[in-house]
Amino acid sequence: QESDSIQTKTEKKESFLNHTSKGFILKSEDGNYEMQIAARLQLRFALPDDQDPITFADFRNQDQRVFKINRARLKVGGHAYQPWIKYYFEYELSQSLLLDYRVMIEKWPWLNFKAGQWKVEFTRERFISSGDQQFVDRSLLNRKFTVDRQQGVEVYGNLNGGGIANFNYWAAILTGLGRGARQNDDSKMMYFGRFQWNFLGREVPFSGGDLKISQKPAAIIAIAAVTNTSPYTRFSTSGGGNLSGYEGTNDGQYTVKQYQIESAFIYKGFSWSSEFHRKSIYDNFDEIETNLGGYYLTAGYLVHQALNFWPEPLEIAFRYAVVNPDLEITSNKQREAAVAFNWFFSGHKNKLTTELTRFTFQDKELPQDDELRFRLQLDISF
Amino acid sequence: QESDSIQTKTEKKESFLNHTSKGFILKSEDGNYEMQIAARLQLRFALPDDQDPITFADFRNQDQRVFKINRARLKVGGHAYQPWIKYYFEYELSQSLLLDYRVMIEKWPWLNFKAGQWKVEFTRERFISSGDQQFVDRSLLNRKFTVDRQQGVEVYGNLNGGGIANFNYWAAILTGLGRGARQNDDSKMMYFGRFQWNFLGREVPFSGGDLKISQKPAAIIAIAAVTNTSPYTRFSTSGGGNLSGYEGTNDGQYTVKQYQIESAFIYKGFSWSSEFHRKSIYDNFDEIETNLGGYYLTAGYLVHQALNFWPEPLEIAFRYAVVNPDLEITSNKQREAAVAFNWFFSGHKNKLTTELTRFTFQDKELPQDDELRFRLQLDISF
Amino acid sequence: QESDSIQTKTEKKESFLNHTSKGFILKSEDGNYEMQIAARLQLRFALPDDQDPITFADFRNQDQRVFKINRARLKVGGHAYQPWIKYYFEYELSQSLLLDYRVMIEKWPWLNFKAGQWKVEFTRERFISSGDQQFVDRSLLNRKFTVDRQQGVEVYGNLNGGGIANFNYWAAILTGLGRGARQNDDSKMMYFGRFQWNFLGREVPFSGGDLKISQKPAAIIAIAAVTNTSPYTRFSTSGGGNLSGYEGTNDGQYTVKQYQIESAFIYKGFSWSSEFHRKSIYDNFDEIETNLGGYYLTAGYLVHQALNFWPEPLEIAFRYAVVNPDLEITSNKQREAAVAFNWFFSGHKNKLTTELTRFTFQDKELPQDDELRFRLQLDISF
Repeated sequence: QESDSIQTKTEKKESFLNHTSKGFILKSEDGNYEMQIAARLQLRFALPDDQDPITFADFRNQDQRVFKINRARLKVGGHAYQPWIKYYFEYELSQSLLLDYRVMIEKWPWLNFKAGQWKVEFTRERFISSGDQQFVDRSLLNRKFTVDRQQGVEVYGNLNGGGIANFNYWAAILTGLGRGARQNDDSKMMYFGRFQWNFLGREVPFSGGDLKISQKPAAIIAIAAVTNTSPYTRFSTSGGGNLSGYEGTNDGQYTVKQYQIESAFIYKGFSWSSEFHRKSIYDNFDEIETNLGGYYLTAGYLVHQALNFWPEPLEIAFRYAVVNPDLEITSNKQREAAVAFNWFFSGHKNKLTTELTRFTFQDKELPQDDELRFRLQLDISF
Repeated sequence: QESDSIQTKTEKKESFLNHTSKGFILKSEDGNYEMQIAARLQLRFALPDDQDPITFADFRNQDQRVFKINRARLKVGGHAYQPWIKYYFEYELSQSLLLDYRVMIEKWPWLNFKAGQWKVEFTRERFISSGDQQFVDRSLLNRKFTVDRQQGVEVYGNLNGGGIANFNYWAAILTGLGRGARQNDDSKMMYFGRFQWNFLGREVPFSGGDLKISQKPAAIIAIAAVTNTSPYTRFSTSGGGNLSGYEGTNDGQYTVKQYQIESAFIYKGFSWSSEFHRKSIYDNFDEIETNLGGYYLTAGYLVHQALNFWPEPLEIAFRYAVVNPDLEITSNKQREAAVAFNWFFSGHKNKLTTELTRFTFQDKELPQDDELRFRLQLDISF
Repeated sequence: QESDSIQTKTEKKESFLNHTSKGFILKSEDGNYEMQIAARLQLRFALPDDQDPITFADFRNQDQRVFKINRARLKVGGHAYQPWIKYYFEYELSQSLLLDYRVMIEKWPWLNFKAGQWKVEFTRERFISSGDQQFVDRSLLNRKFTVDRQQGVEVYGNLNGGGIANFNYWAAILTGLGRGARQNDDSKMMYFGRFQWNFLGREVPFSGGDLKISQKPAAIIAIAAVTNTSPYTRFSTSGGGNLSGYEGTNDGQYTVKQYQIESAFIYKGFSWSSEFHRKSIYDNFDEIETNLGGYYLTAGYLVHQALNFWPEPLEIAFRYAVVNPDLEITSNKQREAAVAFNWFFSGHKNKLTTELTRFTFQDKELPQDDELRFRLQLDISF
């Protein structure tokens, strides 16, 4: 390698370039500096339309078939100064939104620190990257229960006592106003905790399916809880917002407490996951409490593991989800049943997903209504 | 080349870095992965103002001389997995807009596929990059006739039977709501087709002028058509919008059908192009049809090819354009006559353009009005 | 170095990669092309809130403690075609704003040219990057007196006659509508000039503190002036805007003339700077003139230079600032007194700042009011 003749004021380090699944990687010779650059594109066709129904009115929309860029991401990560001072940012190009920007101190497995903006590790479904999903997108539960991205500080780690004594923990204090907030509404912060038991001694990675065909089973059971007081009852990529039925916009209007119990399992190409949710929304102005509930179950299988004739890159996955928008009105239920086929050209980095979903909404006063939706999606990383 | 010592989970490829007219290029050793990174800046001074006049009122504006960043682009392209799986995205930094994001399968010259968002190949003038133009910007026709960027899928290719049997084709199905749309208004899509005869056996590249001083002449004649039903009567970088006189915003309000006939020719530093347009706008609510027409002619010459004293990097170019906003009112005409000088410091990658344009508008009820505009522009790629 | 086998249409240059304080650097072998890529993240905690008070009402806000991403920057610079044709752009990822995009011709030290959009060199405090400050952010003066970023052209340079005959100059013509403007309001441009005397024969760099422990003293005295007619009375990262009390929005409503006298000094870890401001705002519609004044003084010291027990990376800095919103009402005064501690993990590239500020506002009609603010900030470049 020839020496570089640049004159720079500060120390200069010869560097290397290579390519991995994280994209192109620039790395200094001493290993202290590394930058990964990657882009991801998600192209989607949906019929009759793309969005999950929110109210009964959404079932009566006409056909609005659409082909669109659903996600277009620029991802830059790496480390600086030391291999254990890590950073990562992700930018949504199609809507010009900074999604993630975080710094992590990961010197010891059992005690790590994170600061910045990121997807709170509240649920598996939300935390798994939209590029690593088994379905075209997340379930009906996501809109109502996700905490999404927040800004704050966190401590987390893996406590491995050998064998079944294998645990992960996360605890965070966050501003609690969602992605992109520049100020807080009041002095109340968001508090989050998650405890996970890897009872077979191995973690289940935050990635859909079992593409690596695990020869040993891995399973987790986790409980997570979060509490927050803010003007918002839901969070999304757009930041804070309100669920239908909650129109307040006052500072500190809603005190939200929620928890969920999660399971996940992978073994020889089979994957399973579930979440069971409870969420209490207390309106501090109107003094009304509402309780929401819901759960989902998913299972996927690379059928080639059982049937030789089945193509190796083809996975089949099922999902069933139920949401109760108000647990006091037991007849109000929103259901989703979905089947998806994934063709993994190159794992999650280049895959084609086709999905068929039936939504069924029932209400104590309205006749049951349903909709069948078809979606086709290419998700490809560069 | 020293071996790199990074430990990565997935396969690692040693890579190379070089620089071409596409910017810096990162490339994996096996040639399967490549990423080009480039930026472009367009600085413009305009007097009395920058925008083409739209209505007669625009002639009565006072002097609003302006110096501005007109375009600031980040361009990332390359290929992944295979040399024929290509991608490209372009982001407008100054307005934070994702312009292009597309994936191309270009394995055979005669059958290529494209999906994502890109400038529909409807007209040469619009499809040529703003960095490869002979003038400071596009003609008076552009606002009224361009289809601009759309989201969808396309098949295209070059059919070369030898000699004059040399054709290009494009056919696309698109959502038809313009750049950045997230949903469709109804079930009606945009359909686009273009057929091009390269009757001298060679294509004319989509780039202004004949900077490579073609020693053999190249010429094309093309016909293109597009149809769409949407709330919009025009498209631009901002997405869908309406021409003045069309105020509707209902789903599916306007059915637009348009076609154009195009010619282009290059030889020994001389370049020619023309487009002849017809566009029918049918208002499905008010049941009114309007027909628009227009054409432009441009010619450019690197005069050094004929006159030795003329500086080699200096091109002169002329443009004449006429728009009929309503073909039924023949006296309504909008005209543009422009002369431009380009100094190519480094081809289109670094050039200075100075342009003088006279706009003349005539109307059956108003006295004819005109305006003289001067613009100076530096377009430079990094 | 192995040869690369890419076939490209244009000349291909083998290139090098290295890492410096400017981030990763891609460079062509002939040295004509260079691109630096870096990112910067600024994480801030503020109590009771982050923003400087603007009016008395801001003292009565409740506690709104906040943790947030305050700045998230992508910085790309370098040179192209020749080592002296330089470019630089900076993009604010968290708010999707293009901040800087400029081209510089820097062939001779005494005669340089700049075009594009950048922070006008009117004041030291504003021109110093937010990543190179000694405090969490700029003083109370910044909102009222900064000219911020503008679009235009500039000539500048260093005239070095040896010894005390060492001067810098800047002169610019700018559109005068601030960051991101696409057009001008009228024909009046902004004019700016600055003259600086480096009377000890050395420039004081545009960077906070004296981190390099200068063994020879450096000092400057500068005078700068700017005049503009526009709808605006203040500028910020958001573009043009109005100070409280100025509600006009007409084209050319305000003629602003302002000047400032600046000093700066560094020696053996000690740093000093000051600015003294006068600003006249003339309302061309209501024919009212208002005069604003203000000044700040700052001093910082790496105390380890004097006291051995003091930790080497720890700097202490003080700031005192006074603003007169209307010089005719001498009793109206806004004061700020701040103390800050910087821990430089890696110079300005990775530092932790903690700051305590007391704001005191007095008014002829209202009782004096004050507020104490605490802020903690991590500023880290990758």
